[in-house]
Amino acid sequence: MSNGKRVLILGGDGFCGWPTSLHLSQQGYEVTIVDNMVRRKTDIELGCQSLTPIATIDERLRVWKELTGKKIGFINLNVAEDYHELLTVIKEIQPHEIVHFAEQRAAPYSMKSPRHKRYTVDNNINGTHNILCAIVESGLDIHLVHLGTMGVYGYGTAGMVIPEGYLPVKVDAGGKEVDLEIMYPANPGSIYHMTKTLDALLFYYYNKNDELRITDLHQGIVWGMATPETMMHPALVNRFDYESDYGTVLNRFLIQAAVGHPLTIYGNGGQTRAFIHIRDTVRCIQIAIENPAPKGQRVKIFNQATETHRVSKLAEIVSQITGAELRYYSNPRNEALDNELVIHNEQFLQLGLNPTTLSEGLLEDVVEIAANYKDRINMGIIPPVSRWREDIRLDPAGSDVPVTDNRIH
Amino acid sequence: MSNGKRVLILGGDGFCGWPTSLHLSQQGYEVTIVDNMVRRKTDIELGCQSLTPIATIDERLRVWKELTGKKIGFINLNVAEDYHELLTVIKEIQPHEIVHFAEQRAAPYSMKSPRHKRYTVDNNINGTHNILCAIVESGLDIHLVHLGTMGVYGYGTAGMVIPEGYLPVKVDAGGKEVDLEIMYPANPGSIYHMTKTLDALLFYYYNKNDELRITDLHQGIVWGMATPETMMHPALVNRFDYESDYGTVLNRFLIQAAVGHPLTIYGNGGQTRAFIHIRDTVRCIQIAIENPAPKGQRVKIFNQATETHRVSKLAEIVSQITGAELRYYSNPRNEALDNELVIHNEQFLQLGLNPTTLSEGLLEDVVEIAANYKDRINMGIIPPVSRWREDIRLDPAGSDVPVTDNRIH
Repeated sequence: MSNGKRVLILGGDGFCGWPTSLHLSQQGYEVTIVDNMVRRKTDIELGCQSLTPIATIDERLRVWKELTGKKIGFINLNVAEDYHELLTVIKEIQPHEIVHFAEQRAAPYSMKSPRHKRYTVDNNINGTHNILCAIVESGLDIHLVHLGTMGVYGYGTAGMVIPEGYLPVKVDAGGKEVDLEIMYPANPGSIYHMTKTLDALLFYYYNKNDELRITDLHQGIVWGMATPETMMHPALVNRFDYESDYGTVLNRFLIQAAVGHPLTIYGNGGQTRAFIHIRDTVRCIQIAIENPAPKGQRVKIFNQATETHRVSKLAEIVSQITGAELRYYSNPRNEALDNELVIHNEQFLQLGLNPTTLSEGLLEDVVEIAANYKDRINMGIIPPVSRWREDIRLDPAGSDVPVTDNRIH
Repeated sequence: MSNGKRVLILGGDGFCGWPTSLHLSQQGYEVTIVDNMVRRKTDIELGCQSLTPIATIDERLRVWKELTGKKIGFINLNVAEDYHELLTVIKEIQPHEIVHFAEQRAAPYSMKSPRHKRYTVDNNINGTHNILCAIVESGLDIHLVHLGTMGVYGYGTAGMVIPEGYLPVKVDAGGKEVDLEIMYPANPGSIYHMTKTLDALLFYYYNKNDELRITDLHQGIVWGMATPETMMHPALVNRFDYESDYGTVLNRFLIQAAVGHPLTIYGNGGQTRAFIHIRDTVRCIQIAIENPAPKGQRVKIFNQATETHRVSKLAEIVSQITGAELRYYSNPRNEALDNELVIHNEQFLQLGLNPTTLSEGLLEDVVEIAANYKDRINMGIIPPVSRWREDIRLDPAGSDVPVTDNRIH
């Protein structure tokens, strides 16, 4: 049964967008996907493919309709380029909600070369700006939900707990100390992360000037690939990336373990990151849609992450379950050797999210799925290939001991 | 005599870029202008022209060479689009300094329509990013000087004095109060200003990851139009904008006074703004070039403004000098009726800037220049035409009394 709410999902063919589209359709939303298929084309560029075979978008939607009786619409357009088509779609569909996944979303890909840096900035900023501009031009009261990243914060400072978007500070105002609440100072770690910090300013401005209702979700690293809906039929299966550019760290470890490759730890594995299972991603989007910011209030910001872990600890856990070896690579990223990360994430929990954590047997499930598709894997594209600076060393062979220096001297 | 320092001036044909190019050439720098002539083409779009007749770029450079013996190079390319041409220019010229004026620089123009909003974001962000990306790709140690705006700060909060880019704050870190210095929280007042806040994050990131040496100049509203160099010959005269999109507020008042149009005050004129004379702009650029940030240090930020004034006060001063009437228009901008603005600007003063202030007879000079070109003026394009939201009232006829409300109800 439709709940009468129309949702436009930009980037609805991708890794987070596809399971979200199915979940919201299943929950009764009238879903239309807008996607230009760029992620599938990037596979061609990178000479890789999703570990899981993914059906064409037409086949995906046909099977979904057949199984559930629910229709998901599909429009092929480029949000960053086809402004007038996007505006027309918005005016015709008159969505209550737009969910915006339509960005280049991999940090290593954004650092591969000047062309990749420039593509990421051009695509992500013009894409986000086109959406905001089109909502204003449409004159419709649409709530925008954007998939951002925990990476906008950098990785914490001096024992601070990372707040959900806004930071209370004290400043001097003519000799008097004044309390302010500011947007958390941006400290992006890659060109990709930087584009999300630019997005945040676009949201700030359009919220202030045009009173757009916007929710920005600062998401952790997604792991897992299956949701109840994607498991309903082989044609609905989600993509699953294992190469070093688009594969996310925990998923890469699980796949590496499944195919007998040592786990690829960068540096000494001292990086602490925030994580969320893909099942929780789709639930969080639903919660965000159902709790939109009221008109006239500031941008609503949630930290969409359920736990934090040090990468070396994750590798140990995966190794204990699977027996996989550890291998250390010179860190291709320009970042501190170790970092702490403590985050606030109470908002989603208070709104009913029941987190799927690492300890619930799902790790083994992922390894099992990965093992099923073992013959599709290209072992050559597992080690890191994209680096943050020209003077950073890449060592595709790796080392048995932690690497504590990554610059060429 | 050349000092052997090569400077690339991006946007060197524009209102600030042209006098800067001449000034630096006169000071012995080897100047090359890069410009795509877009500002001249915008005149065609807006159906207006510079109040002063401006020579073609070829003529400008020919006369400069003739008068001074100094050669200024010129390359016609679009910084936001022609990445590889830009990179080639940088590699061939190997400049010590790049001065970046190559952005759409008018707030009202950026708000005219969705097309203008999108152009401003696309042009300014891709332009700035291309420059940063090309400097990294060139491998050269180039100091970048960027023309930003005081408008990135918004207009002050709770009695604070606006610092030069960085704000000391106290934050809570696990129960302990910690001192940090952060980038001043951005609060842009238009799409144009927003692009400059995005630029600031691009600079932050490239400075952090690639150790680029960058100076960001947060400039106030420029007034005046002549410098010693532009006054040397009619072919060197600077452009002088009087219509409501590109004309800056004090210059508009002075021209309006010269041609017998009432002064166009928006709202009640309660806005306080920062100002700088064009003569000081060119000196500040030279000071910035001669005092670059050392490698490995954060982005250097200067407030490039010499005084602040309330708009109503400026109108009174101009009225007293010239006898011009005052006329109040519904404010096309979405902003507070009144604001305070107190700024720090000690860095340029300490480095030797001797400010040209309003009280030195230069106001009369500008009125006189404007009066000389009276017959070139189109009175129809003086009142405001670009508004910040669709529900903001425009009243081209204006009113004799201050307007304190600008929304359509």
